[in-house]
Formats: sequence, structure tokens, C-alpha cells
Amino acid sequence: MITDIVAILYPDFETLDIFGPVEVFGLLPESFRISFYSPAGGVITSCQQVPVVTKPLASLDCDPFILIIPGGQGIEPLFSDELYIRSLKGLSEKASYILTVCTGSLLLAKTGLLNGKQATSNKRRFFITQKFPGVTWIKKARWVKDGSIYTSSGISAGIDMALGFLSDRCGHETAANVCQIMEYTWQEEQEDDPFSELYPD
Amino acid sequence: MITDIVAILYPDFETLDIFGPVEVFGLLPESFRISFYSPAGGVITSCQQVPVVTKPLASLDCDPFILIIPGGQGIEPLFSDELYIRSLKGLSEKASYILTVCTGSLLLAKTGLLNGKQATSNKRRFFITQKFPGVTWIKKARWVKDGSIYTSSGISAGIDMALGFLSDRCGHETAANVCQIMEYTWQEEQEDDPFSELYPD
Repeated sequence: MITDIVAILYPDFETLDIFGPVEVFGLLPESFRISFYSPAGGVITSCQQVPVVTKPLASLDCDPFILIIPGGQGIEPLFSDELYIRSLKGLSEKASYILTVCTGSLLLAKTGLLNGKQATSNKRRFFITQKFPGVTWIKKARWVKDGSIYTSSGISAGIDMALGFLSDRCGHETAANVCQIMEYTWQEEQEDDPFSELYPD
Repeated sequence: MITDIVAILYPDFETLDIFGPVEVFGLLPESFRISFYSPAGGVITSCQQVPVVTKPLASLDCDPFILIIPGGQGIEPLFSDELYIRSLKGLSEKASYILTVCTGSLLLAKTGLLNGKQATSNKRRFFITQKFPGVTWIKKARWVKDGSIYTSSGISAGIDMALGFLSDRCGHETAANVCQIMEYTWQEEQEDDPFSELYPD
């Protein structure tokens, strides 16, 4: 069975936040099919000037699906965009699993769906988590799993989280095989996070 | 001064081969400007189904520039596409520096420009290097630098090579700062390559 993965993009998303996990899941085309969406569709350009073609959210008809929410500079204007946050909340409620990378967890927190849950975020921007006291923020974590929601630390941590998710869903051997193909040394311990010590609380 | 980076894409390029280095250089917009090109322009889709908008090569007017050549399944039909190989050779001859990731070094080898030089490639596909005996292939290497040409091992190794290039050109501190922003543990030793031992010669 092929599981759909919905990557939701917005202007100035962080490139590797999306394409790290996309590489991991994309190496298993017999198990996962990835599509890129944005509210209105069209070309969405990352912080690092990558122009990606997206489908409009209204055309999304896959069920069930896994949702990936990247971080990036582009989250800031979205915090005050009530229509966007409502739409993200609706999309998140339909997802079987939600994976956020970097400051993507802050966007999800804004929907209220992280309240009462454990989560992590980018360590350079960790101070922003104070805006969301309903969430139990874990600073020293490469990634955090709480039920069907996985949140990762900054940028490259999305790769380690995607491998962790893959291990949980498809077995450790599958994740290890993907690492071998990617020639990637997986940082497998969720609690191993040297970057959490670089910034004051 | 801003240096242009030209990422040359083709159908079924490997996603992270490009977007790993793009993340590294893209975090320094005051130093690097990245553009995506293909022979005819238009939307080029990666092995992992990422549709990226590219400009046509005929519109390329930056000089000097750094060229990035990804690997991926899509290299196979290009080996026998003389027009493409001639065009890639011409583009490579104009570049100040060439960075190849994964099997991208095999495409560059096909142009003849790696003859007499040291290089590496993807370790699962390393046997293909036998087609190019004029190149000194280094199997145990995360990446190899020979003059203005950098070649990396498979997929994720492109990130380590891009950081190595950045260190050579802009100083170690700049590369270390980018790692910190990416929350990435740089595999800094070029010779440290556990993946080279996984496959027979």
C-alpha cells in the first residue's frame, strides 16, 4: 500500500526542512508518494530561492495522508494570518500523522493542536516557544514524538526525525537501509542534541 | 561580492544532491546567489517527485559562476546523449569551480574533463567508475578536491563537501557558523568514509 505524504509549502520555507524528509521517504516509492501543496497552488519559492511547483489545497483528495510542515523565515507573516492558520488546522486535523521540522512546530502550535503535547523546535529560535505555554516544549531533543505528532529540531534534524518515523512505522531495518543508500550517518538518539546547549534559555 | 551558483538539473536528479548544497550556500545570501537551469528550461522533476522551475541554459549570463552537478537515476539516458554531454562540457569549461554530488561525477567524467584528475562518486554505484579509466578514482573519501573540481560521495555527502568548499573559500569559521544554523554535525574529515567498505571493488 502506498501512503500519501502532503508537504505544505509557503513562501520562504527553509529548503532542507522539506527536502531532507522528502529524500528519506522518496527513496521508498513503493511505500510513499509525495505531493507539494500550498493554499492557492502555483510556484512557491524557498528562503534559498528554490522555486517549487505546488498544487492548490482545494485539489487535495488523498485520505489518509501524512502531513509535513517545514519551518523558515516565512512563518512570521503567517502567525497573524488567521485564514491560513485556520486552513492549516483543518488540514492537520485530517492528517494521520503530522511531522514538523524546525520552526514548523511553532506554526502547528499556533493552530492550538500542540496544546497538552510534548514538542521541540529550532534551537536558535527556541525563545519563540514562550508564546505557546500550553505546549510542553522539550529543549534537549533532536526530535520528539507525542502520539501521531513528530516535531524536530532545526533544519537538518528533519532528516533524523524522518528516519525515526520510518523506523517506527516500517521497522529499523528499513530506516537503516535508507541511511545506507543516502550514505548518511543517522543521529539515532532522540535525546542527543548538542545544539540545545548553544543558546540561553 | 555575490558569487553566482548554477545548479544544472535534469529529469530524475536526486533531490538531496542539489538541495543539501543549496541549503549550505543559501544560508549566505550576501555571498551566493543560486539559480536552477536545464537545457530547455521549464519544470524539471527529481527522482523523488519534486517539480522545480528552471531557466533555459541559453539565458545564462552570469560570469564567473560555480557549477553544481547532481547525480541520480537520470544520468543513465544522458550518458548516450552526445548533445547533452557536449553542452555540459561547454558549461563546465566556463565554470570557476565545479562541484559534483554522488553520480554527478560520472556525468562530468563523460565530458572528459575529469581525465588526469582525482575524484570520487557514490559508493553503491562505484563500479560504474570503471568506464572512465582516465580518472584516478578515490574510493575511500567523503569528498575529493582536485584543483577547482570537488566531487563527493553519495547523496548526503554533498552537504559535507559544500561545507568543505565553503571552508576553503570563505574560512572555517563561516562553515562552522552555517553548521550551527543548520544544526548539522559536519563530517569534516574528507577521508572518513565508512560507506566505502560496504561494497566489493
